Amino acid sequence: MEKLSIIKIGGNVIDNPEELSLFLKDFSNIRGFKILVHGGGKLAAELASKLQIPVVMHQGRRITDSETLKITTMVYAGLINKNIVADLQALEVNSIGISGADGNSIKANKRQNQEIDYGFVGDIEKVNSGFFNLLLNNNLCPIVCAITHDAKGLLLNTNADTIASEIAVGLSESFDVNLIYCFEKDGVLEDVNKPESIIYSLNPEQYKEYKSAGLIHSGMIPKMDNAFDAIKNGVKSVIIGNANNLINLQKEQKNAGTKLSN
Amino acid sequence: MEKLSIIKIGGNVIDNPEELSLFLKDFSNIRGFKILVHGGGKLAAELASKLQIPVVMHQGRRITDSETLKITTMVYAGLINKNIVADLQALEVNSIGISGADGNSIKANKRQNQEIDYGFVGDIEKVNSGFFNLLLNNNLCPIVCAITHDAKGLLLNTNADTIASEIAVGLSESFDVNLIYCFEKDGVLEDVNKPESIIYSLNPEQYKEYKSAGLIHSGMIPKMDNAFDAIKNGVKSVIIGNANNLINLQKEQKNAGTKLSN
Repeated sequence: MEKLSIIKIGGNVIDNPEELSLFLKDFSNIRGFKILVHGGGKLAAELASKLQIPVVMHQGRRITDSETLKITTMVYAGLINKNIVADLQALEVNSIGISGADGNSIKANKRQNQEIDYGFVGDIEKVNSGFFNLLLNNNLCPIVCAITHDAKGLLLNTNADTIASEIAVGLSESFDVNLIYCFEKDGVLEDVNKPESIIYSLNPEQYKEYKSAGLIHSGMIPKMDNAFDAIKNGVKSVIIGNANNLINLQKEQKNAGTKLSN
Repeated sequence: MEKLSIIKIGGNVIDNPEELSLFLKDFSNIRGFKILVHGGGKLAAELASKLQIPVVMHQGRRITDSETLKITTMVYAGLINKNIVADLQALEVNSIGISGADGNSIKANKRQNQEIDYGFVGDIEKVNSGFFNLLLNNNLCPIVCAITHDAKGLLLNTNADTIASEIAVGLSESFDVNLIYCFEKDGVLEDVNKPESIIYSLNPEQYKEYKSAGLIHSGMIPKMDNAFDAIKNGVKSVIIGNANNLINLQKEQKNAGTKLSN
């Protein structure tokens, strides 16, 4: 099978035009099949604040009322997605920006929870791998934003880490998928205050131990859970590392970041 | 050749949720190949106003500074486009929302004018008919917003009537294209104050006469010019009529609207 690189970037890259530009340059130099999944960054919160719409967070996830959904749809699917696509076109990557509604690419269900009203937040039900295959096999590079749909007319805010993981799993039957989570550190750290304390490899047992010891905690836990889900479900390799080190991460260079194993 | 219906809607449909919903229902019932091109409506101006960004118009076209471009990218490519796509998915139309940057579908050039600075406004250079053919032949229905790109990294605001016309011309080698401009009237009127004074057919000479007599004027002129451009360049039929009469317009029923001829 051919290799497919699925790369997820978050706010730390998106919020910094210079970093984004360098990252997209590196991304454009990756050969072969590739998909970019992007989160939202600060722009949505900034716009919500200008429009005096309050932003409420719970366990690292935004609570999405209908006004907030409009903002995220505008910022994620509109402003950020189309600017990345235009930048990549200039770098001669024939990219195509999509939400989960486009081509019915990612169907989700509105989260039901008796205790907390998450609002318009989606949990993924199904990735349309046929659609992604069609794009990839026609030399189109999908740029995926963190908006999905329920196939009943609702758009839904969806965690970008989970989107990346689910697409990776969905495409692992057709490709050797290399899933790369980019963030602002060089890898998962043993001590968050020591940037050099990178854990170069991690299996589920070790992850459990690090969690028990409180060394991996808060926002890293859902990210790691997504990453291990992918590795358990047929994704060939999952690496977590620094966005500015994309080339080495994508080439799976030794010690380029934290490599997960089964 | 198979028939392809290209339908353009503007603000009068987009700004009215009930009308939009009825329109999309009718659109979903059209059999065969179809493309929807949508303008922006009042939402962009409303958002600009809330954010205290002034809206400047010249000859029916928005002057687009960088802040206004951000707004239109958010509203056209994000909010409006993705909601239409989600609504159509619920109606079982496998639609895909695109700007001109996506799949390099519409390349434009930033308008150069020594007298007036139009800002980030694009004049179309090339429609990527191969890309549209790929989507259509894979049962995907393109939903096109009025944003293009220059292939050098710039997004550009572009007239939706022109986009519809240029896509129609670009695809007329592969399809018998039926281009339908929907607006709030039942057709081009001889007397704008008499809704029943519909001109049922119009050729370029008659159009010239109506213009000379001042009966067709202002905002209708660029729309009509686009429409006649299409008919001159291989588009099989061009009809201008009421969005609420889509089914009859698409079936090319007699007197359903104003039919242009060469």
